[in-house]
Amino acid sequence: MREVRAPSHVDSLARLLVRFGANVQPGQVVGLGTEPGKEALARAVAAEAYRAGAKFVDVQCFDVHIKRARALYADPATLAYVPPWVGERVLALGRLRGAMIVLTSPTDPHLMDGIDPELLGRDMLPHVKESSVVLEERTVNWTIGPCPTADWAALAYPELGPEEALERLWSEIATICRLDEPDPVAAWERRMARLQQVAAALDRLQLDRLRYEGPGTNLTVGLLPGSRWQAARLRTLDGVLHAANIPTEEVFTTPDPERAEGVVSATRPLFSSGVLIEGLRMRFEEGRAVEIEAERNAGTLRALTERDPGGIRLGEVALVDCESRVGQRRRVFFETLLDENAASHIALGQGFPWAVAGEDRRRVNRSEVHVDFMIGSEELAVTGVTGAGEEVPLLRDGRFQL
Amino acid sequence: MREVRAPSHVDSLARLLVRFGANVQPGQVVGLGTEPGKEALARAVAAEAYRAGAKFVDVQCFDVHIKRARALYADPATLAYVPPWVGERVLALGRLRGAMIVLTSPTDPHLMDGIDPELLGRDMLPHVKESSVVLEERTVNWTIGPCPTADWAALAYPELGPEEALERLWSEIATICRLDEPDPVAAWERRMARLQQVAAALDRLQLDRLRYEGPGTNLTVGLLPGSRWQAARLRTLDGVLHAANIPTEEVFTTPDPERAEGVVSATRPLFSSGVLIEGLRMRFEEGRAVEIEAERNAGTLRALTERDPGGIRLGEVALVDCESRVGQRRRVFFETLLDENAASHIALGQGFPWAVAGEDRRRVNRSEVHVDFMIGSEELAVTGVTGAGEEVPLLRDGRFQL
Repeated sequence: MREVRAPSHVDSLARLLVRFGANVQPGQVVGLGTEPGKEALARAVAAEAYRAGAKFVDVQCFDVHIKRARALYADPATLAYVPPWVGERVLALGRLRGAMIVLTSPTDPHLMDGIDPELLGRDMLPHVKESSVVLEERTVNWTIGPCPTADWAALAYPELGPEEALERLWSEIATICRLDEPDPVAAWERRMARLQQVAAALDRLQLDRLRYEGPGTNLTVGLLPGSRWQAARLRTLDGVLHAANIPTEEVFTTPDPERAEGVVSATRPLFSSGVLIEGLRMRFEEGRAVEIEAERNAGTLRALTERDPGGIRLGEVALVDCESRVGQRRRVFFETLLDENAASHIALGQGFPWAVAGEDRRRVNRSEVHVDFMIGSEELAVTGVTGAGEEVPLLRDGRFQL
Repeated sequence: MREVRAPSHVDSLARLLVRFGANVQPGQVVGLGTEPGKEALARAVAAEAYRAGAKFVDVQCFDVHIKRARALYADPATLAYVPPWVGERVLALGRLRGAMIVLTSPTDPHLMDGIDPELLGRDMLPHVKESSVVLEERTVNWTIGPCPTADWAALAYPELGPEEALERLWSEIATICRLDEPDPVAAWERRMARLQQVAAALDRLQLDRLRYEGPGTNLTVGLLPGSRWQAARLRTLDGVLHAANIPTEEVFTTPDPERAEGVVSATRPLFSSGVLIEGLRMRFEEGRAVEIEAERNAGTLRALTERDPGGIRLGEVALVDCESRVGQRRRVFFETLLDENAASHIALGQGFPWAVAGEDRRRVNRSEVHVDFMIGSEELAVTGVTGAGEEVPLLRDGRFQL
């Protein structure tokens, strides 16, 4: 196993994920999602969770190389099969009012080279549809955080040697996660307070729709009357406050799945099902993505989104300003968790019912998938339009106008 | 991650475990138990299982460093807790008529240094009691095989450097697993046929008890009238033939849990709950181990065996001759799977109901634990005694007398 060179970052990132991200409570069972090569951080997170009073840390280590072997050798008709206990574990974690911490990173983009993208789209693991149920019920305090790996470092810094690349990635992630602040938790509390302020201002505008204008993009997305803007600062049913993503720089809500019109171009590549989807463009009609094109691997995204009728409708719209420490790095990290926090984005698939008030909650888009893709840049203008037709600039030159 | 230097051994060991050990059938779900550092073999096993027609390979990667963190930091009162889905997965695998492959190795014997052995004995994971249910129902075709790791190599060959030690361990395990034969599966079929012949000869003797005599050992163990001698060549309820251990060199049965008298000394160290138990001695009265002493870590074994009343009674007696390729190596591997196949052994705890015929099956010892320890050597004489008092030499100078 490759040893990580910066143990201080490992321990401080683990502490941030446990104490601020998931906010693990005494007596909780903690689900920890990890992968081979992430042992140092996974062990630090588990130890910190036990120090925080966790009753049990249940590790799920997902090996994408085994997923690849499945796509290569298994009967294609069985690729969507998931054993019953995989989803049951997630539901049970909700019943137990547990916590969940996922350590994420991009996989080698060439790992799935030569495999039919349509086959890859059938196997959604490690994602399971039961996750949506638990998120919706708000029974679990959870976070997703980044874990530097040798593969990721090589992808993000191809110009550096392996050791230097990994050190550089750890250092960048430490900055992005505000681990360089004297008190990282306090720094995150301040940033979240600002994002919650923006979300409240957006709510007061009572917008009917958003208009996105920029290179290759001219898109209007309708909001529901009940759509409520959020920062990723969530509260469980039992009142446990947690930060769903580390880092998080976005304000977001769930739009009207029946109103999206126009064209949109992704401004950054997207990793999904183990492949890199580049040069993505979509056209929407009456809320449906009727055309999905890309310079590379459009087929994987199409197969994913064709799993159910909600897969081609929008579940999320998110705004990100230039205060984002990810955006400030001016680098593609090839990892949605980071890249989506560099730029405004939208997502196909499952919406967030908890982000919609009242009766409109029933209109939230439903799907087994949730695919974020980045459409923001300093050239993207985002304008809010009220029911009365009044136009309000929201983002210009990467800055909130609120 | 440390790369394994001998890919041919990796692939041929994977093939032996999948095709001969578990004998994976088309359409089966396969549970694969592994640990960090075993990725190369785990991936090869998964790929071979999919080639054999597996529907899904469900990987459970157990990290003993996280078990250590739990023992160090969690509330001691919670250490016996296991989330419901961990056992449920095993039961469900049985209901699905799945397969199970476990890749085993010893852990660093110093990993648990300084932790109260009594606390370590409370946490049985990765073992779960539901495994006994599924083994008894014979609904899963399973195997346990060895996986060389850097830690294991350092333990077994402290006199060698890391790379040399790992190469040496792979080479020894290749020999022990008969991977050096032109057709390893055929070689195992021949060895198993011999062991089944010995088991049948033992059954014909209709022994009432076994007498063990050697340095530090003078023990008599009663057999049940229904005790049937076995090789680890099992057949599931549905008729799938599998080899429960790779390697396996033993013939064994389950004794009368109420008849064991005398003293016995272990001839090899035993790893259990992450610690090395050395210089183990026990005294039995009326089937119960009334004294458990050791030069080192007796407390861990006592805590384990005190979990339930069956923990201090015998569940297994096993005979191993000098044809064993493990025994021929004349080396302690610090891993029960190998060491128990070097020498005759007995086990405290859960017996094998499927190894006992008729009404006597109800008399088989029950426990959450099953702890093998090695008592065999070329100086150990094993004698069978019939109900009429007739004495039959079974093992002398390491050779079967049958």
